[in-house]
Amino acid sequence: MADTNQNAGRPARVRLGMVGGGQGAFIGAVHRIAARMDDQFQLVAGAFSSDPDRGAASAAELGVDPSRSYADFAEMAKREARRKDGIEAVAIVTPNHMHVPVALEFLKRGIHVICDKPLSASLNDARKLVRASKGKDALFVLTHNYTGYPMIRQARAMIEAGELGEIRVVQVEYAQDWLAEPLEETQAVWRTDPEKTGLGGATGDIGTHAYNLASYVTGLRCEALAADLQAFVPGRRVDDNGHVLMRFEGGARGMLWCSQVAAGQENNLRLRVFGTRAGIEWSQEDPNYLRVGALGQPRYRLSRNGAATGPEAGRVSRIPAGHPEGYLEAFANIYAEAARAIIAHRDGSAPDAAVHFPGLQEGLEGMGFVDACVRSSKRNAAWIKPAF
Amino acid sequence: MADTNQNAGRPARVRLGMVGGGQGAFIGAVHRIAARMDDQFQLVAGAFSSDPDRGAASAAELGVDPSRSYADFAEMAKREARRKDGIEAVAIVTPNHMHVPVALEFLKRGIHVICDKPLSASLNDARKLVRASKGKDALFVLTHNYTGYPMIRQARAMIEAGELGEIRVVQVEYAQDWLAEPLEETQAVWRTDPEKTGLGGATGDIGTHAYNLASYVTGLRCEALAADLQAFVPGRRVDDNGHVLMRFEGGARGMLWCSQVAAGQENNLRLRVFGTRAGIEWSQEDPNYLRVGALGQPRYRLSRNGAATGPEAGRVSRIPAGHPEGYLEAFANIYAEAARAIIAHRDGSAPDAAVHFPGLQEGLEGMGFVDACVRSSKRNAAWIKPAF
Amino acid sequence: MADTNQNAGRPARVRLGMVGGGQGAFIGAVHRIAARMDDQFQLVAGAFSSDPDRGAASAAELGVDPSRSYADFAEMAKREARRKDGIEAVAIVTPNHMHVPVALEFLKRGIHVICDKPLSASLNDARKLVRASKGKDALFVLTHNYTGYPMIRQARAMIEAGELGEIRVVQVEYAQDWLAEPLEETQAVWRTDPEKTGLGGATGDIGTHAYNLASYVTGLRCEALAADLQAFVPGRRVDDNGHVLMRFEGGARGMLWCSQVAAGQENNLRLRVFGTRAGIEWSQEDPNYLRVGALGQPRYRLSRNGAATGPEAGRVSRIPAGHPEGYLEAFANIYAEAARAIIAHRDGSAPDAAVHFPGLQEGLEGMGFVDACVRSSKRNAAWIKPAF
Amino acid sequence: MADTNQNAGRPARVRLGMVGGGQGAFIGAVHRIAARMDDQFQLVAGAFSSDPDRGAASAAELGVDPSRSYADFAEMAKREARRKDGIEAVAIVTPNHMHVPVALEFLKRGIHVICDKPLSASLNDARKLVRASKGKDALFVLTHNYTGYPMIRQARAMIEAGELGEIRVVQVEYAQDWLAEPLEETQAVWRTDPEKTGLGGATGDIGTHAYNLASYVTGLRCEALAADLQAFVPGRRVDDNGHVLMRFEGGARGMLWCSQVAAGQENNLRLRVFGTRAGIEWSQEDPNYLRVGALGQPRYRLSRNGAATGPEAGRVSRIPAGHPEGYLEAFANIYAEAARAIIAHRDGSAPDAAVHFPGLQEGLEGMGFVDACVRSSKRNAAWIKPAF
Repeated sequence: MADTNQNAGRPARVRLGMVGGGQGAFIGAVHRIAARMDDQFQLVAGAFSSDPDRGAASAAELGVDPSRSYADFAEMAKREARRKDGIEAVAIVTPNHMHVPVALEFLKRGIHVICDKPLSASLNDARKLVRASKGKDALFVLTHNYTGYPMIRQARAMIEAGELGEIRVVQVEYAQDWLAEPLEETQAVWRTDPEKTGLGGATGDIGTHAYNLASYVTGLRCEALAADLQAFVPGRRVDDNGHVLMRFEGGARGMLWCSQVAAGQENNLRLRVFGTRAGIEWSQEDPNYLRVGALGQPRYRLSRNGAATGPEAGRVSRIPAGHPEGYLEAFANIYAEAARAIIAHRDGSAPDAAVHFPGLQEGLEGMGFVDACVRSSKRNAAWIKPAF
Repeated sequence: MADTNQNAGRPARVRLGMVGGGQGAFIGAVHRIAARMDDQFQLVAGAFSSDPDRGAASAAELGVDPSRSYADFAEMAKREARRKDGIEAVAIVTPNHMHVPVALEFLKRGIHVICDKPLSASLNDARKLVRASKGKDALFVLTHNYTGYPMIRQARAMIEAGELGEIRVVQVEYAQDWLAEPLEETQAVWRTDPEKTGLGGATGDIGTHAYNLASYVTGLRCEALAADLQAFVPGRRVDDNGHVLMRFEGGARGMLWCSQVAAGQENNLRLRVFGTRAGIEWSQEDPNYLRVGALGQPRYRLSRNGAATGPEAGRVSRIPAGHPEGYLEAFANIYAEAARAIIAHRDGSAPDAAVHFPGLQEGLEGMGFVDACVRSSKRNAAWIKPAF
Repeated sequence: MADTNQNAGRPARVRLGMVGGGQGAFIGAVHRIAARMDDQFQLVAGAFSSDPDRGAASAAELGVDPSRSYADFAEMAKREARRKDGIEAVAIVTPNHMHVPVALEFLKRGIHVICDKPLSASLNDARKLVRASKGKDALFVLTHNYTGYPMIRQARAMIEAGELGEIRVVQVEYAQDWLAEPLEETQAVWRTDPEKTGLGGATGDIGTHAYNLASYVTGLRCEALAADLQAFVPGRRVDDNGHVLMRFEGGARGMLWCSQVAAGQENNLRLRVFGTRAGIEWSQEDPNYLRVGALGQPRYRLSRNGAATGPEAGRVSRIPAGHPEGYLEAFANIYAEAARAIIAHRDGSAPDAAVHFPGLQEGLEGMGFVDACVRSSKRNAAWIKPAF
Repeated sequence: MADTNQNAGRPARVRLGMVGGGQGAFIGAVHRIAARMDDQFQLVAGAFSSDPDRGAASAAELGVDPSRSYADFAEMAKREARRKDGIEAVAIVTPNHMHVPVALEFLKRGIHVICDKPLSASLNDARKLVRASKGKDALFVLTHNYTGYPMIRQARAMIEAGELGEIRVVQVEYAQDWLAEPLEETQAVWRTDPEKTGLGGATGDIGTHAYNLASYVTGLRCEALAADLQAFVPGRRVDDNGHVLMRFEGGARGMLWCSQVAAGQENNLRLRVFGTRAGIEWSQEDPNYLRVGALGQPRYRLSRNGAATGPEAGRVSRIPAGHPEGYLEAFANIYAEAARAIIAHRDGSAPDAAVHFPGLQEGLEGMGFVDACVRSSKRNAAWIKPAF
C-alpha cells in the first residue's frame, strides 16, 4: 500500500492486470481481495469488461490508471508487454470459454497467468493451451482455491505421511441450491449456456472443484469413472446434478456428488477419505477443523494453528486457532503461493520447496473429468477412463 | 410386569417366543428390551441357541420356564402351537440364512413372526417365504428398526404431504468401521460367511437398512441401480464396501454408500432427500432432529416432540423434546406397532390406520436390492432392475 | 415378563409399588419404563392418584391387580408390609411436598424407596427425613437421573483418576423455555405453587439437577454460593431463572445458570469442567459423547462404548457406539443400580463395589442448595454457605 | 494498490500510520490485513517499535518509506501533522498502557485514531482521554472487532426491531486456555504485568470484548455487577478467570464468564440472549450463523448472506452464504466503517446513517466494566455500579 515498491526490506509487489471482473462480477472481486490480503500484488491494469464503458468505470472504481484500462484483452497484452513497468501477471476472471484465448495472449508474451477454474470450456481447448504453453517462460496458476485451505493442506500432509494407511474410499461432494429454479435469463446466463460454460454444468462449475480437492488431498488420480448426470430444471441445457462412481489408481474407490439443485445447501463442499488406519473429514462450511477417526482411538479434531496441526497448515495460516479464517483467506493462499513463485522467477531462482499451486496439469485433469462424466453419462454411466 | 394379564383395563400382553438370541448375542438382547419398553409383550418361550446347554442357561437367565426352553425351533413351533397359552408371536434373531426356515415353521401354524433383517440370505429364499406366506393368517414384521425413529416418521409425513415438492435427489449412506480389519475368525464368523450371511456382506447387513430407509421416507422404489462393490480386507469373501447409483420411479436419482471399513465411523446412517421445494437431512447418530432447508428460507431444525413436528412423530415418542430418545426406543416402536396389530388381530379387527411396520414386501425389496447390487457389480456396475 | 420369578438362573424381580404417576403424569411413566428396561422390577401395587377413580383406572391400564390398587399411600404401606408377597420397593412420583410424608410411611416399614427429585419441598422436610431414616434398614434412592448417563460416569471417572488435574472452573447450566409464559393455571399448577414445589422454582426443579451433576462429576461440594434469582413471568410466585456463583472446596470456582424462560431451549443441561491439565464438556441433548480438550493436544470426543471410553461408562451401556442411548436409558441405569442394591440387600450382602446411586445425602445437598440460593437472593446475592 | 490515489472514480485511500505492530506482533499484522482488505487505506508511516532497529526493519518489510519510519510516536505525530501528505489516521497497536498517551498526541493534531482495545490500562486514563478528546475534530475508533461480524449485526438488528421481545437473560462468555500455565516470562510478558495491561487480566483482555458484545447486541448497559475474579496460575499478578453477575437497565439479568485458563478452549466467545419471544445464540468460532429459537417455532439458523438475513448483515458481507468469512473480515469491517467515516469527514459531510463503530464511549464503558469487576471482587463480589 506504500507509494514505493523499492524498499530494500521486501521484494517489490507483483504488478498485476486483470481480464474480466468488472462491476457486479462476483469472482473478480474475490480475486482482488485475495491479491491484496498479503500485500504482494499491485493491480495496475485491466480489461475489466467487454463493454468499454463498464470497463472504464470499473477501472476508475478500482483506482486503475485510465491509460491502463483496456477495452480489449489482446491490446492489453500487447501494450503491457511493451511497457517497462508492464504487468508481470494477469488474473483471468472471464466466463469459461474465454480462459484459453485470453491466457494464450499473455503466456506467449511471458506474462504469468492466474486463471479462474475450470481451465476451459472444452477438453480440446484445454489441450490446446497445454500444448501452446510448452516452452513458454511463464507460470500458470489455476485458482482451485479450496486447495488453499490450511486444513486441506493438513489432510494432504497426513495422507502423504501415511497416517491414514492405504487409501480405500473417497467420498466427495459439492452441493448448492442456487440453480434449483430456472435462472437462465437472469443470474446464470452464461453459466447455463453450453457455448460459454462448456458441456458440463454443475460438473464443470463445482464438480471440478470436488474432483480436484479429492485428487489433491489423496495424491491419487481417477483411472475410470461412471457418471449419471441430470438436468432437473426444465429447459436446462447443461447438467445441474451429477452422481459419479470413481476408481482410483492403486485400488481406492470413490463417489462424487455435485449438485446445484440441492435445496437448502449453500456451498457444501465436503471431503471424506478413509484408509486402512484412519479416516478424515473436512467441510468447506466449517473449514478450520479437520476431523480424524483412527481405528481404536477416539475421534479428534485438528484445529487450524492448534495443537498437533502441522507446518503445512501453519505456513498458510495468519491468525491463532479459534479465530476462524475462511474462503477469502484460502483464496489468498493461492495468490500468496503464486507471488512466491513469481518473485522467485524474477531472477530465475526457485521458490521454497513448500510452495505449490494448481496449474495446467490440474486444469487438464479437471477438463478430462468433465469430459469423461459427460461421455459416460451419454453412454448410460459406462466406465470411462478420463483423458488427462 | 404384573402377574396377571387379565385386567379389564388393558389387553393382555402378547405372549412372545424367541429363536436365537442366547447369551452374548447382541441383537437378541435388543429385541427383548424393545419388547419390554412399552409393556406389551411377555417372553414365555424360546429356542435361544443351537447349543442346548447355552439355550437352557439363557432361558434361566431370562426367567423363561425351563419347560418352554427348547433345543430346537421346529419342536418349539409344534409344541407352542398346541398349548392353550402358547406363544402368539415369535422373534427370530438368528443368522440370516436361518430366518426363512424358522419363519416358515411358525407362520404355517398361525404364529406371528417378528424377524430381524435382512429377510434371508438369498433372494430365492425370500421369494419362497413370500409364496409360502400367502393365505397364512399370521403377521410378518421385519425389524427395519430405523423406520421406528420419530423424525424418520416426520420426514416421511412431510414428503407424503408434498412439503419437499417433487423428489429429485436421494443421498443415503451407512458407514461403520467394525470390519476394517479381519475379524473373520472372531467377532464376525457368520457375518463374513456367504453361506450364512448371504451374497451381500455390507450390502446385506447395512445396505439393506439404507435402502429401506430411503424407500420408506420417500415412498419411492428404485427402478435401476448400478453398483460397484468391494472387499477391501484381504481374504474377505463378501463385500465390505459398496457404492451404488440409483434411479427411482418418477425420475429421482440417488446414491447409496454402505461401508464396514470406513475408519472412524460408528453407525453413521444418514439420509438426505432433496425436492423441488425443500431438502431434509437426518442422521442416526443424532436422531432427535430433522434438518430442513427450504428454498428461500433459513434452515430449521425440527425436534422430536418439539414445535411444528407432526403427529406421525408424536405418536411414537415417549418423552418431551430435548430429552433424547435413541436406538432402543426406535426399535421398540417397531415392537409397539407389531403389538397393536397383533392385539387387533386377536379379534379380527384392524389396528388404527396409523399403525404400520416393515414386512415381507420390504424384506423382498431388500433382498432384491442386494441381489441387484451383487449382479451389477459382477457385470462392472451395469444397470440392473431390482427384482422386487 | 415371565409368569414366574423363581428360576434358578436369575434373582426374582424386585416387587415394586408406585405412589403417584396416574394417567397423564409424565414422570410416573418415565419411572415405569426405566423400571422395565432391564427387567429387574415388577410393578404389582400402587396408589396412583389422590383421585380414587383415576387411581383405579390407572391401575387397570397398567395391569396392576385391583386388590393392590390403593386410594391412600399410608394404607398401601400398611397392607403391602403385611403381605408375604408385598412390595420390596416403592417409587414415589408425587409433587415435591409429598415426597417426605410418603417416604416416611414406607421407610419405617423397611420398604425401599425410589424417590423423584428434589428430595422435598423444604430443607426442614429433608432434614426430618434424614433423621427419621437413621437406623432404618431400607435403601433410599433419589432419581437424579442424569447421573445415570454413561458419559457422565466417564467424566466422573476421569476426574477421579486425575486426568483433568486439579479442578479450577465448573460451568453448569440447565435451560428450558416451557415456563416462558404463564402456565400457572394449566400445565404448571403445582410446579409454580410454593406450597407444593417448595421455595425454589427453577432452582428446585432443574437447578438441583445441575448442582447435583456438577457435584457428582467433580466430587466437590459447594462451600459458598451467591445467587441472583428472578421471577420474570408476571405473577409468578417462584423463581423461573437463577444465576449463581459458586465456590467449591479446594478452591474451584463455578457458575450455575438455571432457567425455565430461556426461549428456544428444550432441556439444555450442560456441564463443563476445567482443570489444570484438561477440560471436558457434556450436553444432555447430545449425551453419547464427552468432549475433552487437554492442554497441548487436539480436542477429542469420547463416544459411549467407543474407543478409550472406560468401564465405568461401559457397565451402564447397552448397545454399541454410534447407536444412541438417551434419557430413558440413563434413567433406567438408576433403577438398575437400585435393583442391584436391593437384590444384594435381600440376603444382607453388599452389591458390587461399582454400584452407586444418589440417595439421602444428595437429596439433602440439593435442598441445601435451593435454600441457600433463596436466602442469598433475598440478601442481594450475599455469599451463603449451603447447609448440607 | 495502484500507484495513484487520484482517480475520479473513487475517493483517495486513507493515509494511515501505525504505532506499535513491529515484527512478531500479532495484532499489528491483523490491523494491517484489516486495513488492506477493502483497499481503503494506505500504510505510509509508522513508529513500529520502541526498539529503533526493529522499527526500521519492520518499516522496510512493510514497504514503508524509511523517511517515514519513526523511532518515537510523538515525533511521528508532529512530523506527519506538518506534511501535506501526512497521515490522516493512526492505528495504535501498543500494549494497553500506551494507548492513551499515544492517542493524545495524534488526536490533538486532528489525526484520527484507530485504537486497539481495551481503551487504556486504567479507568482514570480512559477518563483523561475522553476529557481531552472533547472538541477535537478527529474520530476515535476502538477495534472491538467482534462487533464487525455480520451475524452480530444481524442479532443487534433483530433485537432493535423487537423480534426477541423484551430482553430477560444475557449469557456471554469468552474462554481461552493460552494462559493456563505460567507464560509470564515468555509470551505474556506485558499481558500479565498490571502496570502495562491494567488491573484486569482476563477481564481487561477478553472480558471487555464479552461485555462490549453483549451491550452492543442488546443495546443495554449494565447497571450493577458482582464479580468473583481469580488468578489460578501460581504467581500470576492479574486475574485469569472471572465470573460476573450482571443487572442491566430495564430488568434484564446476565452472567459473564471470561477465562484464559479454560483448558481446551481456543477463542470461544459466545453470546446468548433470551427475550420474552425468542432467544439467539452466536459463537465466534462458528461466526457465519445465528441460531434463533422462538417460542412455539422450530429453531432456525440464519446464515450470513442467506435467506431472511437482513441488510445490516449484508452490508458488511463480501461473499455468498456458505462461503465462510472469519475474524479478519470482521476486523476489516471495523476498518471499512472507519474509512467511510474518515472519507466523509474530509469534506465535513456525514457518512451513511448505517455506518457505526465502537468509540470512546464504548472504551470508557469497557474500562468501567474492568474497574467495577476488580472492585467488586476485592469486596467479595459486592454489587458495584460501573462508572461509565
